Amino acid sequence: MPLQMNAEQLMAFFEEVFPQLDNAFEVLRLEEMELDMRMKIGEAHLRPGGTVSGPSMFTLADCIVYGAVLAMIGPKALSVTTNCSIDFMRKPEAGVDLIGKCKLLKLGRALAVGDVLIYSEGMDKPVARATLTYSIPPK
Amino acid sequence: MPLQMNAEQLMAFFEEVFPQLDNAFEVLRLEEMELDMRMKIGEAHLRPGGTVSGPSMFTLADCIVYGAVLAMIGPKALSVTTNCSIDFMRKPEAGVDLIGKCKLLKLGRALAVGDVLIYSEGMDKPVARATLTYSIPPK
Amino acid sequence: MPLQMNAEQLMAFFEEVFPQLDNAFEVLRLEEMELDMRMKIGEAHLRPGGTVSGPSMFTLADCIVYGAVLAMIGPKALSVTTNCSIDFMRKPEAGVDLIGKCKLLKLGRALAVGDVLIYSEGMDKPVARATLTYSIPPK
Amino acid sequence: MPLQMNAEQLMAFFEEVFPQLDNAFEVLRLEEMELDMRMKIGEAHLRPGGTVSGPSMFTLADCIVYGAVLAMIGPKALSVTTNCSIDFMRKPEAGVDLIGKCKLLKLGRALAVGDVLIYSEGMDKPVARATLTYSIPPK
Repeated sequence: MPLQMNAEQLMAFFEEVFPQLDNAFEVLRLEEMELDMRMKIGEAHLRPGGTVSGPSMFTLADCIVYGAVLAMIGPKALSVTTNCSIDFMRKPEAGVDLIGKCKLLKLGRALAVGDVLIYSEGMDKPVARATLTYSIPPK
Repeated sequence: MPLQMNAEQLMAFFEEVFPQLDNAFEVLRLEEMELDMRMKIGEAHLRPGGTVSGPSMFTLADCIVYGAVLAMIGPKALSVTTNCSIDFMRKPEAGVDLIGKCKLLKLGRALAVGDVLIYSEGMDKPVARATLTYSIPPK
Repeated sequence: MPLQMNAEQLMAFFEEVFPQLDNAFEVLRLEEMELDMRMKIGEAHLRPGGTVSGPSMFTLADCIVYGAVLAMIGPKALSVTTNCSIDFMRKPEAGVDLIGKCKLLKLGRALAVGDVLIYSEGMDKPVARATLTYSIPPK
Repeated sequence: MPLQMNAEQLMAFFEEVFPQLDNAFEVLRLEEMELDMRMKIGEAHLRPGGTVSGPSMFTLADCIVYGAVLAMIGPKALSVTTNCSIDFMRKPEAGVDLIGKCKLLKLGRALAVGDVLIYSEGMDKPVARATLTYSIPPK
């Protein structure tokens, strides 16, 4: 099953549907069922002590699975997250971008499941992992 | 086990440690092991079509369990979320505040577990549910 | 939405589709969107030290949500669990039956979500909590 | 950090602490932070239609993370599962063994987190995925 969107198309779609995200995301690698993205970390994402907030990591996990699904099925803004489990395992480094690496484990007609590992750029152990289920609207 | 903080003290602590949240939260009810909060929904929380974003609901779930734990153990900013599972069940109403209702199911020495139901104000069925585990730093 | 099965019909269906469970389950209370069940604990459910195993608690959580869904929609054996998050919070008491209390939070056309609290009979704090999503086959 | 147990020692420990599992497990590969195991599927693990039950897949996920943790820290039977999220993505094949592949993503002093992919032997897409958190008792 070939990709329905390339990196540029995906970014243009993100800017259109998530104007609040303020171009925080950048596609690093896009292949069938796989997407790596960078999330630029600014003041709004920090917690006291300089660490990146949990909601910021959730946002990256949510957007990267959404992006990986849309790249495979085309721009259907109505796909919605139905479930997420996320484990916060290490403290992200202060003032460093996050890198998310997503693999889709399932892309069915009604449900998609994606796994995400999140890294502070330059660290070799993940700061968080997440699995999300997306519900895909019927044609 | 009595409360270590009241609603005012909890709000003052939130404003200090989460300045980015911009006073979005308000305590509606605080009792032993239970906390209800309102999250004021503004433009930054919306998705196309006017619905409230998943990351906004995650933020409410994360903050309300943090608040419920701190109210019981006192202001220890170092408590951290280690795990969250969240189910998005219905579309939140556009332009309506979210109400979160949290019950702590466990408050141990090292780990606390809290359950959260999230409602669009005025709806009787929850839009989301979440369970979070917090790691409590040793004394 | 009225119940489609009563407690006796539900138990008869369980014995038919889960013969391996060996009549371990008993309905304690069945109402719209709510089901309480007892799981009789025998040798096969124990771990060293006499505590009840995690897989036994998962089995109860899985069966009780299945039962609550079927009681509402009628006996459709093809409904399948798509996701479960479960938190083990306290050690179950040795040689004591488990009591599960389930509330369905959502019963849509395609997906149902149920919350479960699990108790050792006679304890007032839950030993575990779980949330399960069931996929309901189209008519 | 070197392994504290080899495959034989791990299997001997499993037989001692899980006599009910009846030698269902076999180590296929054991390395630092990684463990692959086979679960022999018998009548007791089946559902109507011949598919493997959800609780059987949960049992494999639970045991494989336990095994991966113990192989790294030595035989501490008191390590307990505190949380599991599991996604059932495809129907397992009837009458075919399950293969579990576990990677530990974190092995801290108090908590370990392991990711598991579960396959029906011979299928290239996973039937389930799970993440488990284990609480490690203090020395």
